[in-house]
Amino acid sequence: MTAVGRALPAPAGSARRGRPGHDLDTVLAIAVEVFNERGFDGTSMEELSRRLGISKSAIYHHVQGKEALLGLALDHALAGLEQAAAEVRAAPGPAVERLESLLRRSVEVLVERLPYVTLLLRVRGNSATERQALTRRRRIDRLVAELVEQAVRDGDLSGDVDPAVVARLLFGLVNSLTEWLKPGSRHTADELAGIITAVAFGGLRVHRQP
Amino acid sequence: MTAVGRALPAPAGSARRGRPGHDLDTVLAIAVEVFNERGFDGTSMEELSRRLGISKSAIYHHVQGKEALLGLALDHALAGLEQAAAEVRAAPGPAVERLESLLRRSVEVLVERLPYVTLLLRVRGNSATERQALTRRRRIDRLVAELVEQAVRDGDLSGDVDPAVVARLLFGLVNSLTEWLKPGSRHTADELAGIITAVAFGGLRVHRQP
Repeated sequence: MTAVGRALPAPAGSARRGRPGHDLDTVLAIAVEVFNERGFDGTSMEELSRRLGISKSAIYHHVQGKEALLGLALDHALAGLEQAAAEVRAAPGPAVERLESLLRRSVEVLVERLPYVTLLLRVRGNSATERQALTRRRRIDRLVAELVEQAVRDGDLSGDVDPAVVARLLFGLVNSLTEWLKPGSRHTADELAGIITAVAFGGLRVHRQP
Repeated sequence: MTAVGRALPAPAGSARRGRPGHDLDTVLAIAVEVFNERGFDGTSMEELSRRLGISKSAIYHHVQGKEALLGLALDHALAGLEQAAAEVRAAPGPAVERLESLLRRSVEVLVERLPYVTLLLRVRGNSATERQALTRRRRIDRLVAELVEQAVRDGDLSGDVDPAVVARLLFGLVNSLTEWLKPGSRHTADELAGIITAVAFGGLRVHRQP
Protein backbone atom coordinates (compact mmCIF):
# COMPACT_ATOMS: atom_id res chain seq x y z
CA MET A 1 0.00 0.00 0.00
CA THR A 2 1.84 3.04 -1.23
CA ALA A 3 -1.12 5.16 -2.27
CA VAL A 4 -0.79 7.58 0.62
CA GLY A 5 2.88 8.21 0.06
CA ARG A 6 4.23 11.68 0.59
CA ALA A 7 0.81 13.27 0.91
CA LEU A 8 0.95 12.63 4.64
CA PRO A 9 3.32 14.40 7.02
CA ALA A 10 5.37 12.06 9.19
CA PRO A 11 4.27 12.56 12.79
CA ALA A 12 7.05 14.04 14.94
CA GLY A 13 9.17 11.43 16.62
CA SER A 14 7.52 8.43 15.00
CA ALA A 15 9.66 5.57 13.82
CA ARG A 16 8.10 5.35 10.36
CA ARG A 17 10.99 3.53 8.81
CA GLY A 18 12.16 0.08 9.83
CA ARG A 19 8.83 -0.97 11.38
CA PRO A 20 6.98 -2.42 8.42
CA GLY A 21 3.23 -2.74 8.96
CA HIS A 22 3.14 -0.10 11.67
CA ASP A 23 3.84 3.21 9.97
CA LEU A 24 1.17 5.89 9.56
CA ASP A 25 0.43 4.89 5.96
CA THR A 26 -0.37 1.34 7.03
CA VAL A 27 -2.42 2.44 10.04
CA LEU A 28 -4.38 4.75 7.75
CA ALA A 29 -4.89 2.17 4.99
CA ILE A 30 -6.24 -0.41 7.44
CA ALA A 31 -8.36 2.15 9.29
CA VAL A 32 -9.99 3.17 5.97
CA GLU A 33 -10.70 -0.50 5.22
CA VAL A 34 -12.43 -0.91 8.59
CA PHE A 35 -14.35 2.39 8.26
CA ASN A 36 -15.66 1.26 4.85
CA GLU A 37 -16.69 -2.13 6.23
CA ARG A 38 -18.32 -1.06 9.49
CA GLY A 39 -19.00 2.64 9.01
CA PHE A 40 -16.98 5.33 10.80
CA ASP A 41 -19.41 5.55 13.73
CA GLY A 42 -19.47 1.76 14.02
CA THR A 43 -15.67 1.52 14.37
CA SER A 44 -14.09 1.72 17.82
CA MET A 45 -10.41 2.31 18.64
CA GLU A 46 -10.52 -1.21 20.17
CA GLU A 47 -11.55 -2.65 16.79
CA LEU A 48 -8.81 -0.68 15.01
CA SER A 49 -6.25 -1.90 17.53
CA ARG A 50 -7.38 -5.51 16.98
CA ARG A 51 -7.24 -5.23 13.17
CA LEU A 52 -3.85 -3.53 13.21
CA GLY A 53 -2.44 -5.99 15.72
CA ILE A 54 -0.98 -3.12 17.75
CA SER A 55 -2.07 -1.50 21.01
CA LYS A 56 -4.25 1.61 21.17
CA SER A 57 -1.32 3.59 22.57
CA ALA A 58 0.75 2.52 19.54
CA ILE A 59 -2.01 4.00 17.35
CA TYR A 60 -1.99 7.23 19.39
CA HIS A 61 1.75 7.36 18.76
CA HIS A 62 0.93 8.00 15.09
CA VAL A 63 -2.28 9.99 15.22
CA GLN A 64 -4.52 11.84 17.70
CA GLY A 65 -7.49 9.51 17.28
CA LYS A 66 -10.26 8.18 15.06
CA GLU A 67 -11.42 11.62 13.86
CA ALA A 68 -7.84 12.53 12.84
CA LEU A 69 -7.57 9.28 10.85
CA LEU A 70 -10.82 10.16 9.08
CA GLY A 71 -9.47 13.65 8.34
CA LEU A 72 -6.23 12.26 6.83
CA ALA A 73 -8.15 9.69 4.77
CA LEU A 74 -10.62 12.23 3.37
CA ASP A 75 -7.78 14.63 2.64
CA HIS A 76 -6.00 11.94 0.63
CA ALA A 77 -9.09 11.46 -1.58
CA LEU A 78 -9.81 15.18 -1.86
CA ALA A 79 -6.22 16.22 -2.60
CA GLY A 80 -6.21 13.90 -5.62
CA LEU A 81 -9.53 15.19 -6.93
CA GLU A 82 -8.56 18.82 -6.26
CA GLN A 83 -5.34 18.41 -8.19
CA ALA A 84 -7.31 17.05 -11.14
CA ALA A 85 -9.68 20.02 -10.87
CA ALA A 86 -6.78 22.51 -10.69
CA GLU A 87 -5.18 21.01 -13.81
CA VAL A 88 -8.48 21.24 -15.68
CA ARG A 89 -9.07 24.82 -14.51
CA ALA A 90 -5.64 25.82 -15.84
CA ALA A 91 -5.96 23.89 -19.13
CA PRO A 92 -6.69 25.65 -22.42
CA GLY A 93 -9.32 24.38 -24.84
CA PRO A 94 -13.12 24.29 -25.06
CA ALA A 95 -15.20 23.44 -21.96
CA VAL A 96 -16.47 20.15 -23.40
CA GLU A 97 -12.91 18.85 -23.72
CA ARG A 98 -11.93 20.05 -20.26
CA LEU A 99 -15.05 18.37 -18.88
CA GLU A 100 -14.10 15.10 -20.54
CA SER A 101 -10.58 15.46 -19.20
CA LEU A 102 -11.91 16.14 -15.66
CA LEU A 103 -14.05 12.99 -15.87
CA ARG A 104 -11.08 10.97 -17.08
CA ARG A 105 -8.75 12.29 -14.36
CA SER A 106 -11.41 11.70 -11.69
CA VAL A 107 -11.68 8.05 -12.73
CA GLU A 108 -7.90 7.76 -12.45
CA VAL A 109 -7.89 9.24 -8.93
CA LEU A 110 -10.82 7.01 -7.93
CA VAL A 111 -9.10 3.84 -9.16
CA GLU A 112 -5.76 4.80 -7.62
CA ARG A 113 -7.24 5.82 -4.24
CA LEU A 114 -10.33 3.59 -4.31
CA PRO A 115 -10.92 2.97 -0.56
CA TYR A 116 -10.28 6.65 0.24
CA VAL A 117 -12.72 7.94 -2.40
CA THR A 118 -15.27 5.30 -1.31
CA LEU A 119 -15.03 6.65 2.24
CA LEU A 120 -15.35 10.24 0.98
CA LEU A 121 -18.54 9.44 -0.94
CA ARG A 122 -20.18 8.07 2.22
CA VAL A 123 -19.54 11.20 4.25
CA ARG A 124 -22.82 12.86 5.27
CA GLY A 125 -21.63 15.81 7.36
CA ASN A 126 -21.91 14.32 10.86
CA SER A 127 -18.85 16.17 12.26
CA ALA A 128 -16.67 19.21 11.56
CA THR A 129 -14.20 16.97 9.68
CA GLU A 130 -16.99 15.60 7.50
CA ARG A 131 -18.49 19.05 6.86
CA GLN A 132 -15.10 20.42 5.75
CA ALA A 133 -14.76 17.49 3.34
CA LEU A 134 -18.25 18.16 1.94
CA THR A 135 -17.36 21.82 1.39
CA ARG A 136 -14.25 20.81 -0.57
CA ARG A 137 -16.28 18.25 -2.56
CA ARG A 138 -18.89 20.87 -3.45
CA ARG A 139 -16.18 23.14 -4.89
CA ILE A 140 -15.28 20.38 -7.37
CA ASP A 141 -18.97 19.75 -8.13
CA ARG A 142 -19.33 23.44 -8.95
CA LEU A 143 -16.48 23.24 -11.49
CA VAL A 144 -18.24 20.33 -13.20
CA ALA A 145 -21.52 22.27 -13.33
CA GLU A 146 -19.73 25.35 -14.73
CA LEU A 147 -18.03 23.30 -17.45
CA VAL A 148 -21.35 21.68 -18.42
CA GLU A 149 -23.02 25.11 -18.62
CA GLN A 150 -20.18 26.53 -20.70
CA ALA A 151 -20.24 23.52 -23.04
CA VAL A 152 -23.99 24.02 -23.55
CA ARG A 153 -23.38 27.74 -24.31
CA ASP A 154 -20.61 26.72 -26.76
CA GLY A 155 -23.16 24.47 -28.50
CA ASP A 156 -21.04 21.39 -27.75
CA LEU A 157 -23.47 19.75 -25.31
CA SER A 158 -27.18 19.36 -25.84
CA GLY A 159 -29.11 22.21 -24.20
CA ASP A 160 -32.32 20.18 -23.96
CA VAL A 161 -31.40 18.96 -20.49
CA ASP A 162 -30.84 20.73 -17.17
CA PRO A 163 -27.05 21.31 -16.84
CA ALA A 164 -27.18 20.88 -13.05
CA VAL A 165 -28.76 17.45 -13.45
CA VAL A 166 -26.28 16.49 -16.17
CA ALA A 167 -23.36 17.51 -13.93
CA ARG A 168 -24.71 15.35 -11.10
CA LEU A 169 -25.31 12.38 -13.39
CA LEU A 170 -21.82 12.57 -14.89
CA PHE A 171 -20.30 12.38 -11.43
CA GLY A 172 -22.85 9.77 -10.40
CA LEU A 173 -21.57 7.68 -13.28
CA VAL A 174 -17.93 8.04 -12.15
CA ASN A 175 -18.71 7.56 -8.45
CA SER A 176 -20.81 4.45 -9.09
CA LEU A 177 -17.51 2.66 -9.72
CA THR A 178 -17.01 2.54 -5.95
CA GLU A 179 -20.09 0.27 -5.73
CA TRP A 180 -18.47 -2.66 -7.51
CA LEU A 181 -14.83 -2.01 -8.35
CA LYS A 182 -12.43 -3.97 -6.15
CA PRO A 183 -8.80 -2.99 -5.40
CA GLY A 184 -6.55 -4.78 -7.89
CA SER A 185 -9.39 -5.15 -10.42
CA ARG A 186 -8.45 -6.33 -13.91
CA HIS A 187 -10.11 -3.18 -15.28
CA THR A 188 -7.56 -0.40 -15.66
CA ALA A 189 -8.31 3.25 -14.93
CA ASP A 190 -7.72 3.95 -18.60
CA GLU A 191 -10.24 1.37 -19.77
CA LEU A 192 -12.88 2.55 -17.27
CA ALA A 193 -12.30 6.22 -18.13
CA GLY A 194 -12.70 5.29 -21.80
CA ILE A 195 -16.03 3.53 -21.25
CA ILE A 196 -17.36 6.33 -19.05
CA THR A 197 -16.50 9.08 -21.50
CA ALA A 198 -17.91 6.92 -24.31
CA VAL A 199 -21.17 6.54 -22.42
CA ALA A 200 -21.35 10.21 -21.48
CA PHE A 201 -20.17 11.85 -24.68
CA GLY A 202 -20.46 9.39 -27.52
CA GLY A 203 -23.54 7.50 -26.46
CA LEU A 204 -23.40 3.75 -26.52
CA ARG A 205 -25.75 3.30 -29.39
CA VAL A 206 -24.29 2.67 -32.81
CA HIS A 207 -25.41 5.43 -35.13
CA ARG A 208 -26.27 3.74 -38.40
CA GLN A 209 -26.42 5.59 -41.69
CA PRO A 210 -30.07 5.94 -42.76
CA MET B 1 -47.24 8.53 2.28
CA THR B 2 -49.14 6.09 0.13
CA ALA B 3 -46.22 4.46 -1.67
CA VAL B 4 -46.46 1.23 0.28
CA GLY B 5 -50.18 0.83 -0.33
CA ARG B 6 -51.55 -2.59 -0.98
CA ALA B 7 -48.15 -4.21 -1.40
CA LEU B 8 -48.10 -4.92 2.33
CA PRO B 9 -50.38 -7.43 4.01
CA ALA B 10 -52.32 -5.99 6.95
CA PRO B 11 -51.08 -7.70 10.10
CA ALA B 12 -53.76 -9.90 11.63
CA GLY B 13 -55.88 -8.12 14.20
CA SER B 14 -54.29 -4.71 13.74
CA ALA B 15 -56.50 -1.67 13.67
CA ARG B 16 -54.99 -0.22 10.49
CA ARG B 17 -57.89 2.07 9.78
CA GLY B 18 -59.00 4.90 12.00
CA ARG B 19 -55.61 5.36 13.69
CA PRO B 20 -53.87 7.80 11.36
CA GLY B 21 -50.13 7.97 11.81
CA HIS B 22 -49.94 4.58 13.42
CA ASP B 23 -50.69 2.06 10.70
CA LEU B 24 -48.05 -0.28 9.32
CA ASP B 25 -47.43 1.89 6.24
CA THR B 26 -46.58 4.87 8.44
CA VAL B 27 -44.44 2.83 10.84
CA LEU B 28 -42.56 1.47 7.84
CA ALA B 29 -42.14 4.85 6.13
CA ILE B 30 -40.71 6.46 9.27
CA ALA B 31 -38.52 3.42 10.04
CA VAL B 32 -37.00 3.64 6.52
CA GLU B 33 -36.33 7.35 7.06
CA VAL B 34 -34.49 6.59 10.32
CA PHE B 35 -32.58 3.62 8.79
CA ASN B 36 -31.37 5.87 5.95
CA GLU B 37 -30.30 8.59 8.39
CA ARG B 38 -28.58 6.48 11.03
CA GLY B 39 -27.91 3.17 9.28
CA PHE B 40 -29.88 0.01 10.10
CA ASP B 41 -27.36 -1.17 12.70
CA GLY B 42 -27.28 2.28 14.28
CA THR B 43 -31.06 2.35 14.81
CA SER B 44 -32.54 0.94 18.03
CA MET B 45 -36.18 0.07 18.72
CA GLU B 46 -36.01 2.85 21.36
CA GLU B 47 -35.08 5.37 18.65
CA LEU B 48 -37.88 4.12 16.38
CA SER B 49 -40.37 4.36 19.24
CA ARG B 50 -39.26 7.95 19.93
CA ARG B 51 -39.51 9.00 16.27
CA LEU B 52 -42.88 7.36 15.83
CA GLY B 53 -44.23 8.77 19.07
CA ILE B 54 -45.60 5.37 20.02
CA SER B 55 -44.43 2.74 22.51
CA LYS B 56 -42.25 -0.20 21.52
CA SER B 57 -45.14 -2.59 22.24
CA ALA B 58 -47.30 -0.56 19.84
CA ILE B 59 -44.61 -1.16 17.16
CA TYR B 60 -44.57 -4.89 17.98
CA HIS B 61 -48.34 -4.83 17.46
CA HIS B 62 -47.63 -4.17 13.77
CA VAL B 63 -44.41 -6.03 13.11
CA GLN B 64 -42.09 -8.59 14.74
CA GLY B 65 -39.14 -6.24 15.06
CA LYS B 66 -36.47 -4.18 13.35
CA GLU B 67 -35.35 -6.99 11.00
CA ALA B 68 -38.96 -7.53 9.84
CA LEU B 69 -39.27 -3.80 9.09
CA LEU B 70 -36.10 -3.99 7.03
CA GLY B 71 -37.48 -7.02 5.16
CA LEU B 72 -40.75 -5.23 4.34
CA ALA B 73 -38.91 -2.10 3.23
CA LEU B 74 -36.48 -3.97 0.96
CA ASP B 75 -39.36 -6.00 -0.46
CA HIS B 76 -41.18 -2.81 -1.37
CA ALA B 77 -38.17 -1.57 -3.37
CA LEU B 78 -37.47 -4.97 -4.94
CA ALA B 79 -41.10 -5.72 -5.86
CA GLY B 80 -41.20 -2.50 -7.91
CA LEU B 81 -37.93 -3.24 -9.68
CA GLU B 82 -38.89 -6.90 -10.27
CA GLN B 83 -42.18 -5.87 -11.82
CA ALA B 84 -40.30 -3.57 -14.20
CA ALA B 85 -37.94 -6.44 -15.05
CA ALA B 86 -40.84 -8.86 -15.62
CA GLU B 87 -42.52 -6.39 -17.99
CA VAL B 88 -39.31 -5.95 -19.94
CA ARG B 89 -38.69 -9.72 -20.08
CA ALA B 90 -42.18 -10.21 -21.57
CA ALA B 91 -41.97 -7.30 -24.00
CA PRO B 92 -41.35 -7.81 -27.73
CA GLY B 93 -38.78 -5.77 -29.66
CA PRO B 94 -35.00 -5.59 -29.94
CA ALA B 95 -32.81 -5.83 -26.83
CA VAL B 96 -31.57 -2.24 -27.09
CA GLU B 97 -35.14 -0.93 -26.83
CA ARG B 98 -36.01 -3.26 -23.95
CA LEU B 99 -32.83 -2.13 -22.19
CA GLU B 100 -33.81 1.50 -22.60
CA SER B 101 -37.28 0.68 -21.33
CA LEU B 102 -35.84 -1.15 -18.28
CA LEU B 103 -33.71 1.89 -17.48
CA ARG B 104 -36.69 4.18 -17.83
CA ARG B 105 -38.95 2.00 -15.65
CA SER B 106 -36.19 1.66 -13.03
CA VAL B 107 -35.94 5.44 -12.77
CA GLU B 108 -39.71 5.59 -12.27
CA VAL B 109 -39.61 3.01 -9.48
CA LEU B 110 -36.64 4.77 -7.88
CA VAL B 111 -38.37 8.16 -7.90
CA GLU B 112 -41.69 6.73 -6.66
CA ARG B 113 -40.10 4.62 -3.90
CA LEU B 114 -37.01 6.77 -3.28
CA PRO B 115 -36.29 6.06 0.43
CA TYR B 116 -36.92 2.33 -0.07
CA VAL B 117 -34.57 2.04 -3.07
CA THR B 118 -31.97 4.17 -1.22
CA LEU B 119 -32.11 1.69 1.66
CA LEU B 120 -31.84 -1.24 -0.76
CA LEU B 121 -28.70 0.18 -2.38
CA ARG B 122 -26.96 0.41 1.00
CA VAL B 123 -27.54 -3.24 1.85
CA ARG B 124 -24.24 -5.11 2.13
CA GLY B 125 -25.37 -8.62 3.13
CA ASN B 126 -24.98 -8.41 6.92
CA SER B 127 -28.00 -10.65 7.69
CA ALA B 128 -30.20 -13.30 6.05
CA THR B 129 -32.72 -10.56 5.15
CA GLU B 130 -29.99 -8.51 3.47
CA ARG B 131 -28.54 -11.51 1.65
CA GLN B 132 -31.97 -12.44 0.24
CA ALA B 133 -32.36 -8.88 -0.99
CA LEU B 134 -28.92 -9.00 -2.67
CA THR B 135 -29.86 -12.27 -4.41
CA ARG B 136 -33.03 -10.66 -5.79
CA ARG B 137 -31.05 -7.58 -6.85
CA ARG B 138 -28.49 -9.70 -8.68
CA ARG B 139 -31.26 -11.36 -10.71
CA ILE B 140 -32.23 -7.93 -12.06
CA ASP B 141 -28.57 -7.05 -12.69
CA ARG B 142 -28.25 -10.24 -14.74
CA LEU B 143 -31.18 -9.21 -16.95
CA VAL B 144 -29.46 -5.87 -17.62
CA ALA B 145 -26.20 -7.64 -18.51
CA GLU B 146 -28.05 -10.06 -20.83
CA LEU B 147 -29.82 -7.21 -22.62
CA VAL B 148 -26.53 -5.35 -23.09
CA GLU B 149 -24.89 -8.49 -24.51
CA GLN B 150 -27.81 -9.13 -26.85
CA ALA B 151 -27.82 -5.50 -28.01
CA VAL B 152 -24.09 -5.78 -28.80
CA ARG B 153 -24.75 -9.01 -30.78
CA ASP B 154 -27.58 -7.22 -32.63
CA GLY B 155 -25.08 -4.51 -33.59
CA ASP B 156 -27.15 -1.89 -31.75
CA LEU B 157 -24.62 -1.16 -28.99
CA SER B 158 -20.93 -0.59 -29.48
CA GLY B 159 -18.97 -3.81 -28.97
CA ASP B 160 -15.74 -1.97 -28.15
CA VAL B 161 -16.55 -2.02 -24.46
CA ASP B 162 -17.00 -4.82 -21.91
CA PRO B 163 -20.78 -5.51 -21.69
CA ALA B 164 -20.53 -6.38 -17.98
CA VAL B 165 -18.95 -3.01 -17.22
CA VAL B 166 -21.51 -1.21 -19.37
CA ALA B 167 -24.36 -2.95 -17.53
CA ARG B 168 -22.93 -1.88 -14.17
CA LEU B 169 -22.37 1.70 -15.32
CA LEU B 170 -25.91 2.00 -16.68
CA PHE B 171 -27.30 0.99 -13.31
CA GLY B 172 -24.72 3.13 -11.53
CA LEU B 173 -26.09 6.06 -13.48
CA VAL B 174 -29.68 5.30 -12.42
CA ASN B 175 -28.78 4.50 -8.82
CA SER B 176 -26.69 7.65 -8.41
CA LEU B 177 -30.00 9.53 -8.30
CA THR B 178 -30.38 8.36 -4.69
CA GLU B 179 -27.30 10.44 -3.81
CA TRP B 180 -28.95 13.79 -4.42
CA LEU B 181 -32.61 13.43 -5.32
CA LYS B 182 -34.94 14.53 -2.51
CA PRO B 183 -38.52 13.31 -2.03
CA GLY B 184 -40.85 15.83 -3.66
CA SER B 185 -38.10 17.06 -6.02
CA ARG B 186 -39.14 19.36 -8.88
CA HIS B 187 -37.55 16.85 -11.27
CA THR B 188 -40.14 14.36 -12.50
CA ALA B 189 -39.37 10.69 -13.08
CA ASP B 190 -40.11 11.28 -16.75
CA GLU B 191 -37.59 14.11 -17.04
CA LEU B 192 -34.87 12.18 -15.20
CA ALA B 193 -35.49 9.03 -17.23
CA GLY B 194 -35.23 11.15 -20.38
CA ILE B 195 -31.88 12.65 -19.36
CA ILE B 196 -30.47 9.27 -18.30
CA THR B 197 -31.42 7.52 -21.52
CA ALA B 198 -30.12 10.52 -23.48
CA VAL B 199 -26.76 10.25 -21.67
CA ALA B 200 -26.58 6.48 -22.07
CA PHE B 201 -27.87 6.03 -25.59
CA GLY B 202 -27.68 9.31 -27.42
CA GLY B 203 -24.56 10.75 -25.86
CA LEU B 204 -24.66 14.29 -24.64
CA ARG B 205 -22.43 15.71 -27.27
CA VAL B 206 -23.98 17.47 -30.22
CA HIS B 207 -22.96 15.65 -33.39
CA ARG B 208 -22.22 18.37 -35.91
CA GLN B 209 -22.23 17.80 -39.64
CA PRO B 210 -18.63 17.82 -40.89
